[in-house]
Amino acid sequence: MDLGLRGKNAIVMASSKGLGFACANALAREGANVAINGRGEEAVKAAAASIKKNHDVNVIEIVADLTTDNGREALLAAFSEPDILILNGGGPPPTPFGKTDEAAWEKTLHDTLTSPLLMVQGVLDGMRARKFGRIVAITSAMVKTPHPVMVLSHAPRTGLTSVLKSISRETVKDNVTINQLLPERFETDRHRFLAQATADAKGISLEEVNAAIKTGLAAGRLGQPEEFGDACAYLCAAQSGYICGQNLMLDGGNYRGQA
Amino acid sequence: MDLGLRGKNAIVMASSKGLGFACANALAREGANVAINGRGEEAVKAAAASIKKNHDVNVIEIVADLTTDNGREALLAAFSEPDILILNGGGPPPTPFGKTDEAAWEKTLHDTLTSPLLMVQGVLDGMRARKFGRIVAITSAMVKTPHPVMVLSHAPRTGLTSVLKSISRETVKDNVTINQLLPERFETDRHRFLAQATADAKGISLEEVNAAIKTGLAAGRLGQPEEFGDACAYLCAAQSGYICGQNLMLDGGNYRGQA
Amino acid sequence: MDLGLRGKNAIVMASSKGLGFACANALAREGANVAINGRGEEAVKAAAASIKKNHDVNVIEIVADLTTDNGREALLAAFSEPDILILNGGGPPPTPFGKTDEAAWEKTLHDTLTSPLLMVQGVLDGMRARKFGRIVAITSAMVKTPHPVMVLSHAPRTGLTSVLKSISRETVKDNVTINQLLPERFETDRHRFLAQATADAKGISLEEVNAAIKTGLAAGRLGQPEEFGDACAYLCAAQSGYICGQNLMLDGGNYRGQA
Amino acid sequence: MDLGLRGKNAIVMASSKGLGFACANALAREGANVAINGRGEEAVKAAAASIKKNHDVNVIEIVADLTTDNGREALLAAFSEPDILILNGGGPPPTPFGKTDEAAWEKTLHDTLTSPLLMVQGVLDGMRARKFGRIVAITSAMVKTPHPVMVLSHAPRTGLTSVLKSISRETVKDNVTINQLLPERFETDRHRFLAQATADAKGISLEEVNAAIKTGLAAGRLGQPEEFGDACAYLCAAQSGYICGQNLMLDGGNYRGQA
Repeated sequence: MDLGLRGKNAIVMASSKGLGFACANALAREGANVAINGRGEEAVKAAAASIKKNHDVNVIEIVADLTTDNGREALLAAFSEPDILILNGGGPPPTPFGKTDEAAWEKTLHDTLTSPLLMVQGVLDGMRARKFGRIVAITSAMVKTPHPVMVLSHAPRTGLTSVLKSISRETVKDNVTINQLLPERFETDRHRFLAQATADAKGISLEEVNAAIKTGLAAGRLGQPEEFGDACAYLCAAQSGYICGQNLMLDGGNYRGQA
Repeated sequence: MDLGLRGKNAIVMASSKGLGFACANALAREGANVAINGRGEEAVKAAAASIKKNHDVNVIEIVADLTTDNGREALLAAFSEPDILILNGGGPPPTPFGKTDEAAWEKTLHDTLTSPLLMVQGVLDGMRARKFGRIVAITSAMVKTPHPVMVLSHAPRTGLTSVLKSISRETVKDNVTINQLLPERFETDRHRFLAQATADAKGISLEEVNAAIKTGLAAGRLGQPEEFGDACAYLCAAQSGYICGQNLMLDGGNYRGQA
Repeated sequence: MDLGLRGKNAIVMASSKGLGFACANALAREGANVAINGRGEEAVKAAAASIKKNHDVNVIEIVADLTTDNGREALLAAFSEPDILILNGGGPPPTPFGKTDEAAWEKTLHDTLTSPLLMVQGVLDGMRARKFGRIVAITSAMVKTPHPVMVLSHAPRTGLTSVLKSISRETVKDNVTINQLLPERFETDRHRFLAQATADAKGISLEEVNAAIKTGLAAGRLGQPEEFGDACAYLCAAQSGYICGQNLMLDGGNYRGQA
Repeated sequence: MDLGLRGKNAIVMASSKGLGFACANALAREGANVAINGRGEEAVKAAAASIKKNHDVNVIEIVADLTTDNGREALLAAFSEPDILILNGGGPPPTPFGKTDEAAWEKTLHDTLTSPLLMVQGVLDGMRARKFGRIVAITSAMVKTPHPVMVLSHAPRTGLTSVLKSISRETVKDNVTINQLLPERFETDRHRFLAQATADAKGISLEEVNAAIKTGLAAGRLGQPEEFGDACAYLCAAQSGYICGQNLMLDGGNYRGQA
């Protein structure tokens, strides 16, 4: 399926690894130039090299912390005319509500809600003027099923979702769509790291840890980052302009509520 | 993007025109063999001819009324090993709640809820045994925003959605996904027919009717059936196995609720 | 709190016991005359006697099967000017989707979707003309979290919900509100019967069965029918006219999705 | 209906007028002692006097800005053992997304999300230890239907909703329920002020302004603060302990989505 993305310019936040990288890689495979971003120079270089090796597109490396003004400016400067923006970023550590304090709230709301919104402001007018834009926010299945130990994560993400949904009804008339992808349980490096840590702590094998995790998943397996990247590429496609304001879960059917 | 559909067998209910045809055509373009269905022989033949002309796949013509046992059996017999089933069908005419009666309810619940479920029963065990299946139900944006004059349409569709959602949590472990597509305002033959009827009744031009319709749409335009077909093809893709139990709206961002 | 229900006439379907009885009893306590209904004469008489003993209101006994035309007519004839209608009824037995057949679907859709809608038709015009009406449907938490073994139950209930929601936007202007109550795990006679059956089958005590059930509930306890009856009475109150089209869960906080 | 609130202690944020006052007044009518709060001394005194005149309960006056540490501490000190907390507060002015900046986001997220959460932290452990608590957040219908010009309002409110929902699944086991009330279009002083301003600006009468507003409402009328207060009192009732994690809309049936 031709997604009509050849020559488009895509900014992908936090794309040196994990789901962000998978999105950048899928977009590059479809012919889009991509700006790769991360806080670590080595990881950014490696990610860029991997994409360049496999796909004949421009790859721009931006080492930057996107919770800072300078960081966002650097990434926004990657393309003078960006067509695609993928919102992504790490979340805060699990913290029970009773242990959160004003500083923790200020930080997570700034980093996970305000910062991505400032990125959106940086691209939106141009996209609307040029009559093409695709913005995809990578959030979390917890936007639909909030967990009490993850309040610092799902509060900003639901707030972000609400802003994006409301403005998307206005941007769609200029062929600028905004959608969210809600992942749950993908086999990223981070997943492997956490699973190995659990294995070490419990004195069991990585296979045993993963087996226990899979038992709790409706699909009986972890999601693969490539599947996620393809979903992102599809939402960014030229022919996806009538899909707007959607929360698409990639959770292997785990969610029990009406969709 | 390679959707991994080459050689798959797809049954598409009510596919001689409109959104059903668009789905069949997109699946065929991706290499799937398709069973085309409609109640009118001429329309089925024309749809099949169009697909065969453009795509090198097997196209099976099934003239049948799927609200009958014989009709469903005929369509289910199209492939011994179906991989894909697209649920589709016309809806009842607009009827205010006060004008509905027991017979109207019996008919619409049978035709729009029970009949598609019997089709699902006809393919589900085989798909699960073969560890691949993609079921997509074409419903309506009214599943999320029910309109009082369309009760005979959205009641069976929401009931169908509920059944499909609940069983999808079980089928996904066998790589059988079930999702819904919720269209609103696509430029199908039926749309054109209704718009022309409105134009004739009001003594205005078709262009004026369409202009008025577009004013009420967030996207400022009607959806194109090809966009819808591509969304269907994407949900049927090999790499879409982690998307299950979703209600994906194709409504040009019209829906005002949180997604 | 004065609910303004003195002298109102309330029809409560399936109210000889369980949640239906609790609703009738709460409405009677607030001064409403009530029509009590069940299929068994003895249970209807006992329920009516209990209400009359405690509350000084008119209590009408209607022994009738509401899935029949005669049954519905008998109950609708209880009051010439009904103010309140509580939709209620038993559900079909648990049946996996693969075991359902056309006859089972026809029966459950008729009994659990069409029949209550015909009851609504029987009261709606009068309520609107008199500028007061309160319709409350007792459905199930499964309207929000559909379970695969209960498809015959949640399919008609979600369809019913969709119809009621859509028409409620029109009736509210005449001070006729329509809302749903979604119970999960109340300590009714039926609950006790099923728990005792489980206890007998497993050779354990009723206390052990209930302890196991409570462990799975967020609230750590079963709901009491009186709590449910009071929720129903509140939704029927004169001052609840601005609450319309709501799905209020009474599930002890069990539901994990965003409310 | 006896709500079992006699002698309970209720903290009501921003309760010198409008919906907050209506909640405080309804709770006092049911016998609860109330702490009245506002930033203006005169309004707080007037509100307290009105409640004391009509209801025989303790009324504590707390003039305080709840977006400050001192303000929250002062209100939390009103009762050593609070049983009820009503979260309430003004929202930011309408601002299109493109006009928002980092400072505006920081302020609204602090004032409308973090501040109420810090109030919740101030009462939650005690309520859980004492096995009774009722927390009700007054949010907005925009939590379900976010409007693009109100992003600064609905973003923090949806985030707040997400936090409250997630923790409510844990608190309910200690008989501490947390619910939200989502109002739309109540006839408060603020509504009258804005309507008068519109009338003055357009050179038309207040009646004409209100008539235009009512035309757009499903109920054809504005909600009355007393109706809202009674809904709040009901959710705080002793017998409402099985209602938890709910978003109850008081919008006169305006919302078009499935409830």
